[in-house]
Amino acid sequence: MTNTDKQSIEARIDARIHETLDHWIEQLGRLCAQPSISAQHLGIDECAELTATMLREQGYSADILPTGGSPIVFGERAGKSEKTLLFYNHYDVQPPEPLELWNSPPFTLTRVGDTLYARGVSDDKGQLITRMAAAAAVRDVLGEIPVSIKYFVEGEEEVGSPNIPGGIAAYKERFAADGCIWEFGSVDYSGRPEQTLGMRGLCYVEFTVETAKLDCHSGLGGSLIANAAWRLVWALSTIKGPDERIRVPGFYDNVRPATERDMAYLASQPDHSDEFIATYGVKGFLLGRKGGVELRRAAVFEPTATINGLTSGYQGPGAKTVLPAYASAKMDFRLVPDQTPEEIVPLLRAHLDAEGFEDVAVRYVAGVKPARTDPDDPFVQMSIQAAEDVYGMTPIVEPLIGGSGPLHPFIHELGLPVVTSGCGHPESRVHAPNENIRIPDFINGIRHTARIITRFADL
Amino acid sequence: MTNTDKQSIEARIDARIHETLDHWIEQLGRLCAQPSISAQHLGIDECAELTATMLREQGYSADILPTGGSPIVFGERAGKSEKTLLFYNHYDVQPPEPLELWNSPPFTLTRVGDTLYARGVSDDKGQLITRMAAAAAVRDVLGEIPVSIKYFVEGEEEVGSPNIPGGIAAYKERFAADGCIWEFGSVDYSGRPEQTLGMRGLCYVEFTVETAKLDCHSGLGGSLIANAAWRLVWALSTIKGPDERIRVPGFYDNVRPATERDMAYLASQPDHSDEFIATYGVKGFLLGRKGGVELRRAAVFEPTATINGLTSGYQGPGAKTVLPAYASAKMDFRLVPDQTPEEIVPLLRAHLDAEGFEDVAVRYVAGVKPARTDPDDPFVQMSIQAAEDVYGMTPIVEPLIGGSGPLHPFIHELGLPVVTSGCGHPESRVHAPNENIRIPDFINGIRHTARIITRFADL
Repeated sequence: MTNTDKQSIEARIDARIHETLDHWIEQLGRLCAQPSISAQHLGIDECAELTATMLREQGYSADILPTGGSPIVFGERAGKSEKTLLFYNHYDVQPPEPLELWNSPPFTLTRVGDTLYARGVSDDKGQLITRMAAAAAVRDVLGEIPVSIKYFVEGEEEVGSPNIPGGIAAYKERFAADGCIWEFGSVDYSGRPEQTLGMRGLCYVEFTVETAKLDCHSGLGGSLIANAAWRLVWALSTIKGPDERIRVPGFYDNVRPATERDMAYLASQPDHSDEFIATYGVKGFLLGRKGGVELRRAAVFEPTATINGLTSGYQGPGAKTVLPAYASAKMDFRLVPDQTPEEIVPLLRAHLDAEGFEDVAVRYVAGVKPARTDPDDPFVQMSIQAAEDVYGMTPIVEPLIGGSGPLHPFIHELGLPVVTSGCGHPESRVHAPNENIRIPDFINGIRHTARIITRFADL
Repeated sequence: MTNTDKQSIEARIDARIHETLDHWIEQLGRLCAQPSISAQHLGIDECAELTATMLREQGYSADILPTGGSPIVFGERAGKSEKTLLFYNHYDVQPPEPLELWNSPPFTLTRVGDTLYARGVSDDKGQLITRMAAAAAVRDVLGEIPVSIKYFVEGEEEVGSPNIPGGIAAYKERFAADGCIWEFGSVDYSGRPEQTLGMRGLCYVEFTVETAKLDCHSGLGGSLIANAAWRLVWALSTIKGPDERIRVPGFYDNVRPATERDMAYLASQPDHSDEFIATYGVKGFLLGRKGGVELRRAAVFEPTATINGLTSGYQGPGAKTVLPAYASAKMDFRLVPDQTPEEIVPLLRAHLDAEGFEDVAVRYVAGVKPARTDPDDPFVQMSIQAAEDVYGMTPIVEPLIGGSGPLHPFIHELGLPVVTSGCGHPESRVHAPNENIRIPDFINGIRHTARIITRFADL
């Protein structure tokens, strides 16, 4: 097939995507109408069933695979070549609260101009529909799909995917593939597509201190007995100081610094530091950093220690002279390759003991490993080129992003190169009221996915 | 009058106290039946009226003096000598919650055996009734009261008496007296009466940090922008470390150490350190201190810095990866002579600025000055002797206690020596459900107060 033939085919697929747009918006409305709140296990089984039904309607075999938590919907359809493309998505959504801030019912897809509103319309039901719509358009034009397609649609991404590594280990053979499109994809404010090649890991812990059986009057005990709030403050202050350096011995041992190639990708990224400062109303960046490549490097290639919450004693109005017996803090550590969440808690325990805080308990709450795909993988370079062709702009390549997800087992257990594609935009308001996508982004997300499907067979 | 005459008179007063006991328990029930919760301004004006009515029924003139907050009930009755004795009490009480833990209705005086239960029965309505009952018994036996009596009954003691220093300044002439009986008095576990001669002061502050307009995703901002919780933790950790030394420059400048005489009083106090450890379930005392006079000195003669509460970010179950824009802490500083609450906030401000925490705001919430009465004042020694005569045991003299109250203006504005007398016991459960007094303690509190009234004229 000549390049002209290929372009002609892709043009026909694009035309088919436009022809079937209303159908897929309707399907998106059908999926968004089924609440599926993993934090409350609300509608999860129903949404798994619906997802399987929709896949079967498109000619996929679909199984609902039990895990320890929400089931995985696994869809499959053999293609012409020996290549297999796996879509990782999730059918669960964040809770819709606060409801009063929504301009339309969160579980009713509502169109206003070219924007579609619903809980999950961007994260992640809209993205899932782009995969179905793209594969259908390719099939309609070519009569068959040139690669085998697998859908891995999980139902607990919004609560940290605790059963996904285990689920992958349990059903590893079924998930075998040659490449993976990750659950999300977005354009930036200028409309440039983003190509994400890695995610930081996460180790979420809770620190607790209990110094006494009951709270004490501060006039009575203030000079006499340990105060849980003070113990917690002192223990935390040994973990990181205002220099932002994490003081836990061994914490940085497995940190792999950014490579020259990473730095080149970072250098080619646009600078959004002024917008960031304006959005959050901060005076500036930590350590006096200004925008630029060094800020972008620090934002993703450095591990972090973030206090997420502090609780102790009296928190109401006015004064209560209590000496608290109990205090707790939640913290997340964002991890970079090759750190692991499993190594962090023992390091914290040893550090607290060495600093004299045997009384401060540390409990592992949740975690995922950091992971990166190889930028030089032909599949990755193909996806970048396909995005450039669809959007008419060079994609922003993100060798690593600050957030976390269950990327590691897909790359390291299933051995897949992983790319991104999809329909998000910077104002999609994921996890917030009035979550939305824009129809032009939805179309381009379908087009980019379709390009990956058609070009993958030729790699 | 010979000593024998005096003893005979005091015996007749004791007998009269026993004869009128039921009447005064009834009056106590009447006062407890009127809720007077200053924290909610519930029943305050009604209870002030009732207190004035009850004083008038006993032959006192009674005025209700407005302050910026709850009014002061001021009662007065001229006596035979030129001496004037002032009773400081309060008619307000703590909220009764949690209601489900009460065994009887909190605003219904309930007798079980020799114990009387009600909110305020010990703190402070029972104490107020001991003053009325004592003065009435003396009057009934002698035909008149040998000293002039003044009642200073305030209505916001449970919220820190914010308007009392101002109220004393405003009505200073009317409160002129020669000695004062403070609002409380108690026996210890062995039945020994306690004589309190001073109270620590208090400076209650709130620290707040606001680093951004809104919370941020920790994956996005963790390496980039300031975290309010970290700023708070670091700022607090500069105020006091695990050595318990307060690091704020100038904080200790006005601390007056315990004198030899104070140490002698402390040495004669019983050692309750084992009971304290058992009650609170702590492993031991701060800094490895054991019981004994050094522990008792530290308990009251050292100022403290106590974190009362910490609040920031996500405090619910599970994990939320948020970078908090806001954090706050409540702290109280217990102060010893000659520290003042007014000096503390500027010292804290200067310290935080010097340590690089200009972003941490500190707000003064409430405070009282520390104060001590002179142990060598003849009025004080007379009260100690009277207690020994009533209880048949040498009183425990407390040159200073750990708690705080509006003692300073009575000693330093009105120039009064101040003693304690009353009906409390270690299990009175003040501020807690099932607040109570025991009738034998109630009787002894009345007897001790009556002794002070009769002997004061002869000083």
